[in-house]
Amino acid sequence: MNDLDPIAELQDLLKDDLNAMNDMIKKMMTSENTPTIQKISNHIFSAGGKKLRPLLCLATARALDYTEDKHILLAASIEFVHTATLLHDDVVDESSTRRGTKTANILWNNQSSILVGDFLFSRAFQLMVSTDSLEILEVLSETSAVIAESEVLQLSEVGNVSTSTETYMKIIEGKTAALFSAATQTGAMISSSNLEHIENFKCYGKAIGLSFQLIDDYLDYKGSPADMGKSIGDDFNNTKLTFPLISALKKGDSSEKKLIENSLLKEPKDPEDLIKIIRIMEKYKTLEETKTAARKWSSIASKSLQKLPKNDITQLLGKVSEIIVQRSS
Amino acid sequence: MNDLDPIAELQDLLKDDLNAMNDMIKKMMTSENTPTIQKISNHIFSAGGKKLRPLLCLATARALDYTEDKHILLAASIEFVHTATLLHDDVVDESSTRRGTKTANILWNNQSSILVGDFLFSRAFQLMVSTDSLEILEVLSETSAVIAESEVLQLSEVGNVSTSTETYMKIIEGKTAALFSAATQTGAMISSSNLEHIENFKCYGKAIGLSFQLIDDYLDYKGSPADMGKSIGDDFNNTKLTFPLISALKKGDSSEKKLIENSLLKEPKDPEDLIKIIRIMEKYKTLEETKTAARKWSSIASKSLQKLPKNDITQLLGKVSEIIVQRSS
Repeated sequence: MNDLDPIAELQDLLKDDLNAMNDMIKKMMTSENTPTIQKISNHIFSAGGKKLRPLLCLATARALDYTEDKHILLAASIEFVHTATLLHDDVVDESSTRRGTKTANILWNNQSSILVGDFLFSRAFQLMVSTDSLEILEVLSETSAVIAESEVLQLSEVGNVSTSTETYMKIIEGKTAALFSAATQTGAMISSSNLEHIENFKCYGKAIGLSFQLIDDYLDYKGSPADMGKSIGDDFNNTKLTFPLISALKKGDSSEKKLIENSLLKEPKDPEDLIKIIRIMEKYKTLEETKTAARKWSSIASKSLQKLPKNDITQLLGKVSEIIVQRSS
Repeated sequence: MNDLDPIAELQDLLKDDLNAMNDMIKKMMTSENTPTIQKISNHIFSAGGKKLRPLLCLATARALDYTEDKHILLAASIEFVHTATLLHDDVVDESSTRRGTKTANILWNNQSSILVGDFLFSRAFQLMVSTDSLEILEVLSETSAVIAESEVLQLSEVGNVSTSTETYMKIIEGKTAALFSAATQTGAMISSSNLEHIENFKCYGKAIGLSFQLIDDYLDYKGSPADMGKSIGDDFNNTKLTFPLISALKKGDSSEKKLIENSLLKEPKDPEDLIKIIRIMEKYKTLEETKTAARKWSSIASKSLQKLPKNDITQLLGKVSEIIVQRSS
């Protein structure tokens, strides 16, 4: 990311908040009795990532002139939910790498990933409770249920070549956009009682989340492994039907459709098939179409911001919604 | 269980509360979009069980003359936490049967069990939030973390022949007694602000939980498969060191100790070894010793009750603490 990257600018502007949040994360992931928790938590939190969800939460609170410190608890809890989800996702998907390093299920085992995920989720819950707001707890507990529900829906759609774009959108709204939306909604709730501001920040988060996931699913066929720190075609290899593949199945002729269907039946998948499928996607421009859908949500995010107070932070959040579709990793 | 069983008597006395709780469970386990959740939840809740934890929560509230209905939400949330834990435990232990029926991880798959467990845990969290009590949420979120923490500790002690009785007690206090204790503590908190009552009910729950788990670990070597709806020697087969085995390792001579250690190294375990180990346990009376430890905790539970109001319910709770060590299934 270069100097003009608005995420880096936000990170710089909010560095005190981020440091406080990282200290809180360190404190809450500690478990004196169980070194395994410590080791796995260290592994997953030190692997980094941009911590985009908690950053948006902190930014929202500050954009609405929040002067107390409960947004730190909130942001840490959002990151704990996200991390717990990653641990369980990697077991469910049998993933072996994430962000360029081996996953916990590979370095330790599935059992540890499941139980440490449960621990981190419980810690998230403790952090939320310490914000002392029942309204915020209501949003976050509902969000957790929606995330789990859509993960189950995603699992039950694995290998279903009839998966519709509507079902796909429902899945990504639940598994990804819900937590982005909760991050900005609760960041606003803790700072303000202005219902319009809260609603606009909620919409901003949801739209950013949808755009983010659409680009993720685009990059899974388009990005280079070096860029992503993960391999290409993960979704294809997991028989997971995402936007570009669903659209290719819709637009392809009967022989192309048959090719995709047959290739999805093979276990393990044939890398030659992946190349052919990407060619079909290029022919029907379904990757470009995925990016267009992401752009649509980015512009919805920008529109939500127009109704919010103008300041340094909302300006940077506007730039975030623009660059989210430009990312290549 | 016969007519004089105090658990059956409590169930009868509190049948309206239990019905209301079962309705709440049905409502909250519903997921319109994801039939898999519905099916797995149906499977696990209809498999039954005595629902002892929520029963103790309801009983506690009523023993302290609670007249509102938030104890229903609380009891349902306790059962959801328990059920979510069972789903994850069965994946971690690779169990194939529970209460005489096939487990969800066998009927569906590990992935579904993990994600539906997460969903039920989120629902538990939603139910807790709807009690509108931050003090109760603090106890229950802390309890969830303690449960997960001790499950990780248990996992990291698998196969460790040096596991001490202290570590074993720490594990069962976390994985079992914590939820029993939270059930009675929060049942008291929702009904009363008398700190002594709350503390005594908390102690009662913890002691019942410890007694219950000690008997469980005793029955795993002593009960008959027909009684338990599960097979004998599960803990041995999972290389899980529980009280009777830890004590046998401490008391056995060097050749007996060697036999146990070698048998724990085999995968799969040898049923002949199990017979030999049970013989060693009988020689040193370690099963009887486990029951004695359970009896000690039962009498601590009874003592906690003596400081509480005398009524039909506390009388029955006193009987529960007596019969908990007599159960054979």
